[in-house]
Parts: sequence; C-alpha cells; structure tokens
Amino acid sequence: MTSYREAGVDLEGAERHTESIADAVTSTWTREVIGAFGGFAAGVRIPRDLDDPVLMMSTDGVGTKLEIARRVGVWGGVGHDLVAMCVDDLAVSGARPIAFVDYMAVGSLSPERDRSIVASVAEACAAAGCPLLGGETAEHPGVMDPDALDLAGTAVGVVEAADVLGPERVVAGDLIIGLHSPNLRSNGFSLVRAVLGDEVEPLAGILLEPSVIYSPAIVSLAGLEGVHSAAHITGGGIAHNLARALPDGLGATVDLGSWDRPEVFDLISSHGVSEREMQRAFNLGIGFCLVVSPRTEEDVLTRVAEHMPVRIGVVGAGHGVDLR
Amino acid sequence: MTSYREAGVDLEGAERHTESIADAVTSTWTREVIGAFGGFAAGVRIPRDLDDPVLMMSTDGVGTKLEIARRVGVWGGVGHDLVAMCVDDLAVSGARPIAFVDYMAVGSLSPERDRSIVASVAEACAAAGCPLLGGETAEHPGVMDPDALDLAGTAVGVVEAADVLGPERVVAGDLIIGLHSPNLRSNGFSLVRAVLGDEVEPLAGILLEPSVIYSPAIVSLAGLEGVHSAAHITGGGIAHNLARALPDGLGATVDLGSWDRPEVFDLISSHGVSEREMQRAFNLGIGFCLVVSPRTEEDVLTRVAEHMPVRIGVVGAGHGVDLR
Repeated sequence: MTSYREAGVDLEGAERHTESIADAVTSTWTREVIGAFGGFAAGVRIPRDLDDPVLMMSTDGVGTKLEIARRVGVWGGVGHDLVAMCVDDLAVSGARPIAFVDYMAVGSLSPERDRSIVASVAEACAAAGCPLLGGETAEHPGVMDPDALDLAGTAVGVVEAADVLGPERVVAGDLIIGLHSPNLRSNGFSLVRAVLGDEVEPLAGILLEPSVIYSPAIVSLAGLEGVHSAAHITGGGIAHNLARALPDGLGATVDLGSWDRPEVFDLISSHGVSEREMQRAFNLGIGFCLVVSPRTEEDVLTRVAEHMPVRIGVVGAGHGVDLR
Repeated sequence: MTSYREAGVDLEGAERHTESIADAVTSTWTREVIGAFGGFAAGVRIPRDLDDPVLMMSTDGVGTKLEIARRVGVWGGVGHDLVAMCVDDLAVSGARPIAFVDYMAVGSLSPERDRSIVASVAEACAAAGCPLLGGETAEHPGVMDPDALDLAGTAVGVVEAADVLGPERVVAGDLIIGLHSPNLRSNGFSLVRAVLGDEVEPLAGILLEPSVIYSPAIVSLAGLEGVHSAAHITGGGIAHNLARALPDGLGATVDLGSWDRPEVFDLISSHGVSEREMQRAFNLGIGFCLVVSPRTEEDVLTRVAEHMPVRIGVVGAGHGVDLR
C-alpha cells in the first residue's frame, strides 16, 4: 500500500463529510460567532453583560449508549445525549454555554450516519442555546472496526464570578430539588447491555430516548439568591453525584419514595440487578439536583417547572448522601 | 451479570484513576483557575488585558499515532502530540491558550498507562502555558478491546478581536515563513503503519518523537503589524493547509528545496510512497507557516528563531498552493 487512500484514510471523503455538515453546523451560529466554517478554529465573542466572567469547560462522551444506536442504526438522539452530558455539567456551576465542539472517531467514514450524527449535535446545541463552533471527525483505519465509532464533545460556558454555584454556599436545612429524567440519559449502558443482552435491540426505542437538557432552565436561575449548589446525576447515581454538591461536614438524606421511578428502571432491575447496583449506575428518574434555601424553594420550583421538580431531600449535619 | 463491575465498568478503579492524576493536573493550575479538582467542571478567569476578547476553540485527537505508542507501551510523548494539535490550531488565529481538557476512551482502565498519559498531557499543557482544567476517562467495555484507547482534547484560547489573524489580511507579495518540524507530528500515521508494517516497532523511537508546540512562539507575535495569517500543517500537508490561510484570488508558490527534509520522511518514501502522496499526508519538515509582510520578515524570524524559520514561498495572484 502506498497511498493514504489505500491505507484507509479517505481525504476526499473527509472533504465531502465537511461539506455535508456545513449547513447544520452554521445553522447554530449566532452573530457572536467569528470566523468561517472550515477554518482551523472558530471563535465566539465573550458576552459583555458579565462584570467578571469565569470561563467553565466540560468534556464528556456518549459512552456505550452509542453501541445501541449503532446496532439499530438510529442516530437522531445521540447529539442530545452528548450536548446534555457537557452543558449540564457546566450548569452545575451556573454557567451558560457559549460554544461547543464535537469529536468523532470512526473506523471509516459513513456519509449518511456521520451527517445524521452531526445534525443531531447541531440540533441539540441549538436547543441548548449554544453555537456548534466546530469539531473533528477522525478516521482510525485498522485500529477501529470499519463501523465502530465514538462521540465526545466539549462545552465552554461563562458565569459571573460572584454567581458561581458550589458546595461552599450550602448550609444545613437546605433542600434538595430533583429534576425529572424520564430515561437513562447517557449513563449505565455497559450494565444495560450486559443484563439485557440481545433484548437491547427490541428495547432500543426506550433505551435510546434522548437525554433531557437541563441547562436552559438552570441558567434561568442565574443570580437568584438562595440557589446554592447543584449536581448532574451521571455515572455513580444520585448519592455519588449529589455528594459532590455538599461541603465537608454536611450530608443529605434523599427520600427515594418522593418521586415515581420511570418504567425503564424497573425493566432493568427485573433482570436481576440489585437495588444497590441500580442506585450506583442509574439516575432512577432524577437527572439533576439543585440545593436551595427553603425560602427560595417556591421560586425555583416555578422557574424549572418544565422539569417536574420535586423536593427529594434535605441537607443536615453528617457526611455523604443517604438514600432511603 | 448483575453489577456494573461485572459489566466491565470499574467505578472504584475510576476513582483511583482520578486520585492518581490529581497532582499532575493541578500542577498546571495557575491562580486564574477557579474550582476544585474533582468537581463537575473547572473554570478559569478570562484574562483582563484584552479590550474585546474573542474566545477560540479547537478540538483534535492524536489519531493512530497512539497505536504505535500502544504497541511499544511508550506514552511519554502523546500528551505533547495532543496539546500541539489543539493549541497550534488556535495559534493560527493568534489566540493564546487559556484552558485545556482531555478525553480518553479505553476498553478498560490500565492504571500505569492512564496515569502516564495524563501526566504527559499535563506536562505539555505546562509547556504551552495553559492549565489542564479537567478531562474525562471513559470505559467502553465490550465495545473497545480491553487494551484499546483513544485520546482527544480541546483547547480554548483568547485573542484580541482586532488581532485575529486570517486570510483577509493577506496581500500579494507576502512571504511564507515555514517553522521547522523534525518529525511527523501527529499526522499520516495510518499511512505510516500501512507502509512500514511490522517495521514500525523497531522505528517507534523516531516515529513517536513528540510534536513541537509552536503556540508560545506564535503568541509572542501578538499584535505585531505585518503578521497576516498562519497555517498549522496537519493532515493534507503543506499545500492543503497553507491554502486555508489565503484569500480567494491569491495563491502561493512554495519552494520545496528551501529547507532540508528530515530523514524520517525519506525513510517513509523509500517504502514506495510517491512524492505526491508524501506531500498530501505529511508536513515534510514544516509544521507551521506564517504569512507575513516582507517588511516584518526580519522581526518575525527573530522572534520565532527557536523553530528554525525559513522563507519557503511567496504569495501572488492565483489560486491554491503550488509546491515546486
């Protein structure tokens, strides 16, 4: 083999891929975006409405939820999963996303699939109010199987320094508000695939439901006094992630009976997954938590009403999070 | 299988991994970094010395250069490759990097390897003058082979809006200054692996040489009049990438005899790769190009002297880049 093409790298295919995604990507561009599509890097003006802006950055992937999408060839939701994982990590600090880039690694290019995936990422970026500035699609011939792929992304956000949410704001007596997740989001899929085996394909419709993007609702709370900290419920479940929102010396108790667990979790547990493992691997119907002052509770419940918020627990002396 | 562990996801291993990299990551943190290691996202203050800052963002991976590192188990340079790919894309616009995140996907965690890789990324971030804010290490059991891995990253930079470099600044008569690359950087490795076959292992020392990071030298040119545009020579080679630095209606001729081609390229071409393919796949010894006014040439040559700059071509009427 003496050519790049024969070695499995399709430069012309890569150019066609770039052309095929141009409209989807640039459709997310606001007047704040600087640069042209196809440059080495694109830019965005930093919002001028902040006195002392802090830039937050989060990177994540869709994980092995992609494997289920691959098996059934359905790509329309993976962008929502990717963008949700990243911008909702930013939302934990109160930051609003201002730019996103995606990274896709493939064994070999597949024009329809690749365009669908980028279109899905662009759609989710638009939903999150954040331009998709660019991305990278890398061919890894001989290292990845021809139809293998991985999808990751990075979000950048800004938040007023004085408004950064965090554990240091939390006090005993604060309430835990849980936001509804109707599905698995993008976590726990290695366990799902292991327990469901070949059943994942008939269940792909429910398993692939796209993740809710909480970021716009959380961003709407910016500067609201009494919103103290937050947790994005990803791998590790409610206890592990909520604990990251609490300072040393304080813990929380969460009442597992305070919300209805979506059916998909019963489906999984019915395959012999213990309650303890369910709690460690899945969000169980709560995808995001806010830690707020009791006097702010009503205001918060109103502003994030679209996510069916429920008071699920309370902060007190102690350590870690007790699910009961 | 009923546990996350049995499904191949090692939550405790992930926590140990996080602990093992904490010192390397936080060693890159400046006083501008906000947040604590282990949070959902980390932040950095936006530099206050810019009047109208534009945020630039670039994402890239190491590609299949990683496969050679994997075969010989040498990880010390891959971070330089990753950081170089990203921050040198930012440098094309003149942006200085202010934050970096890495994304690693693995079949299964390998503590020593994973720590070495993150340490290498941290070292390269320090060399680029940019904090490693955080990252993601994702296990993909059953989807990736246990010892498979991929490494990508994203850099964020800032540049004064009035100083953004780009093709629109270029005029006929501008000179092309090439900066020396002693090696392949992180491009063309699928072709390298295809032509060298099993010879890659004995040659791994030369093939894995880490990429030069040009960013600090380019950033030192910020605001210098007469520096017009730039190109990072990645996949597609000099002609393809330099063409992206030129406006419609202007082209460039590059004299391939104006610099010495490093030996590694002769080694590859001696395996039957045509000159045309060599030009399309490799940097051939020029890793970064600056397009500058003749009256600024001397000043630029002095400021980037560490990269053995050479005048390699000139801009004129026409289209594209002619290598001769």
